[in-house]
Amino acid sequence: MYELLKTEGKAKRGRLHTVHGVIETPVFMNVGTAAAIKGAVSTEDLKEIDTQVQLSNTYHLHLRPGDEVVKKLGGLHKFMVWDRPILTDSGGFQVFSLAGLRKIKEEGVHFQSHIDGRKIFMGPEESMQIQSNLGSTIAMAFDECPASVHERAYIEQSVERTTRWLKRCKAEMSRLNDLPDTVNKEQLLFGINQGGVLEDVRIAHAKEIAELDLPGYAIGGLAVGESHEEMYRILDAVVPHLPQNKPTYLMGVGTPINILEAVERGVDFFDCVYPSRNGRHGHAYTNQGKINLFNAKFELDARPIEEGCGCPACSKYSRAYIRHLLKAKEMLGMRLLVLHNLYFYNHLMEDIRLALDEGRFTEFKKRKIEEMTKNT
Amino acid sequence: MYELLKTEGKAKRGRLHTVHGVIETPVFMNVGTAAAIKGAVSTEDLKEIDTQVQLSNTYHLHLRPGDEVVKKLGGLHKFMVWDRPILTDSGGFQVFSLAGLRKIKEEGVHFQSHIDGRKIFMGPEESMQIQSNLGSTIAMAFDECPASVHERAYIEQSVERTTRWLKRCKAEMSRLNDLPDTVNKEQLLFGINQGGVLEDVRIAHAKEIAELDLPGYAIGGLAVGESHEEMYRILDAVVPHLPQNKPTYLMGVGTPINILEAVERGVDFFDCVYPSRNGRHGHAYTNQGKINLFNAKFELDARPIEEGCGCPACSKYSRAYIRHLLKAKEMLGMRLLVLHNLYFYNHLMEDIRLALDEGRFTEFKKRKIEEMTKNT
Repeated sequence: MYELLKTEGKAKRGRLHTVHGVIETPVFMNVGTAAAIKGAVSTEDLKEIDTQVQLSNTYHLHLRPGDEVVKKLGGLHKFMVWDRPILTDSGGFQVFSLAGLRKIKEEGVHFQSHIDGRKIFMGPEESMQIQSNLGSTIAMAFDECPASVHERAYIEQSVERTTRWLKRCKAEMSRLNDLPDTVNKEQLLFGINQGGVLEDVRIAHAKEIAELDLPGYAIGGLAVGESHEEMYRILDAVVPHLPQNKPTYLMGVGTPINILEAVERGVDFFDCVYPSRNGRHGHAYTNQGKINLFNAKFELDARPIEEGCGCPACSKYSRAYIRHLLKAKEMLGMRLLVLHNLYFYNHLMEDIRLALDEGRFTEFKKRKIEEMTKNT
Repeated sequence: MYELLKTEGKAKRGRLHTVHGVIETPVFMNVGTAAAIKGAVSTEDLKEIDTQVQLSNTYHLHLRPGDEVVKKLGGLHKFMVWDRPILTDSGGFQVFSLAGLRKIKEEGVHFQSHIDGRKIFMGPEESMQIQSNLGSTIAMAFDECPASVHERAYIEQSVERTTRWLKRCKAEMSRLNDLPDTVNKEQLLFGINQGGVLEDVRIAHAKEIAELDLPGYAIGGLAVGESHEEMYRILDAVVPHLPQNKPTYLMGVGTPINILEAVERGVDFFDCVYPSRNGRHGHAYTNQGKINLFNAKFELDARPIEEGCGCPACSKYSRAYIRHLLKAKEMLGMRLLVLHNLYFYNHLMEDIRLALDEGRFTEFKKRKIEEMTKNT
């Protein structure tokens, strides 16, 4: 299912075969929280900007339109008209970051909807049932993402519970995939490593979950406030204890430089809201670093955001026009920047894969980081 | 320049040749106020939905980004990347509806920007200069659009001033088109008929401005609060006094039924914010009337907005998905509805032209109105 095509140091060039097509890794999954990429970007647009995988959020879709509604409409692929792979998160992270008044018990979490305050219960089984209704290609295990302010004792307890929850997720997904009316009977389950910034807890947990022989493993609970150096330290410690012959997914990461650093440490799946969120706020990624299109210096700049870029924004529109759209609060400005930024990320990953294919990733990474930081 | 290809009763099937290409009439001009169609619609999208003419607003572009900026960037066509005709209004309507603290004098209008309160003066010459900087295909004369609450004496005085302003517009445009660095030296000027709902004032004014032999004439100051029946009565009265062998433009109109009624009365240019504004509020035009996609009955509706419609929304996405996007406040929902509605208007005009070509407009109009109103 997962082919490890090549390595360079710890860096992996892989290929995951799924029921919805092949994923070439390292890959950046484009985040469409509520079954749509923010910034008026459709699944048709995603194809135009060479997106391989779309990621949607279980918590959001459970609340609205409801996973039962999505199932009745044939699953998420049919609902949003996307025939390539979709990864859904477990809802866990949102339960711990967005929902109100939550109460964690062994069976799961009681919480209130951030939309209407409605009381909801979600445990490992419920998360799997929702993701099964959505019919995503890859489902994520339901875990707790403990705040890094917690002390060691709490984190150890939480990680142990996350392991027990993972086993329940695996059993439930197996049951669901065997039901006659399941949307995607070949849904894959990825486990999630936790443990805050405690290397020993992370490593022990990685070893434990690796034994469950799941189709992929993620590292969760990073990029939640710790420094980049702390994150790299944890990756250095934990990635070698996750199966090399399985996808390795660093959740919610990150900047182009974060991605280059994590690829070097053996990660090959990524997702992050940065390209779309930054685009909506007027920031564009370029090979010379980020630029802020609100800046007055772009008023008469007839050049594209980036010379030579083949995205729908750069192939037609100028910095001056996009700046005007942003200043005039025209949605088109946000849309063009989101398209550019996602294209930038998708093509950064393509360049990374090509560098790995050609055995020159180390040099590529060094040059890329130099280019992107020389103006800062 | 304007060919009157065919008539059916008063209805005109025409063709206007411009420096930016041919306009087949009757035509609906898609409104892109600030050099962009609201709803994240680009000029590339406009081609996909068969837009012939894009309309932008002089007042808005003068304030932001500034017409001098647009001129430095090569004019509006180059700025927004649109090679087909553009009509710009004169700014007059916005000065009278949006700006603060205005003072009307013979030389023009002193007013304050609605964006930052800056004091601005605009008269016939300034309006022509701004539109010349924008380089639109068709410029509109600077006029006063008196509120219909005014009494006869005020409206008569106002219309007389509008005539004097029109002569100044014509002289100024002629001067500007002869300057060496003018963006579009073949810019066309359309005059505007005013007179509120007073038929005799309208007719006298129409006769007077017709003598100036301009490339086209508009009827302004309608669809500003009077009833549809009053509007049709004014059209019945005034259109026969405007040159039949010139474009006849009814400004700011309107619903599909308004357009059918006005075409029957000899109008062949239209513009209106309805399709984009209604789209942004969740309303979609169909051949069976408008539907509100927020309605709960569409929750599980897997059909497109309209069966058989070839627009970018209907060719891929379901009512259920678009409803979800609207509920989740995803910009994509607005974008898809705006694309659908503009496509609907553009294709309604195409159907009208075909019916006129084939001498069956009267029957077409009757059937169309029956279809669109039978559910209301």
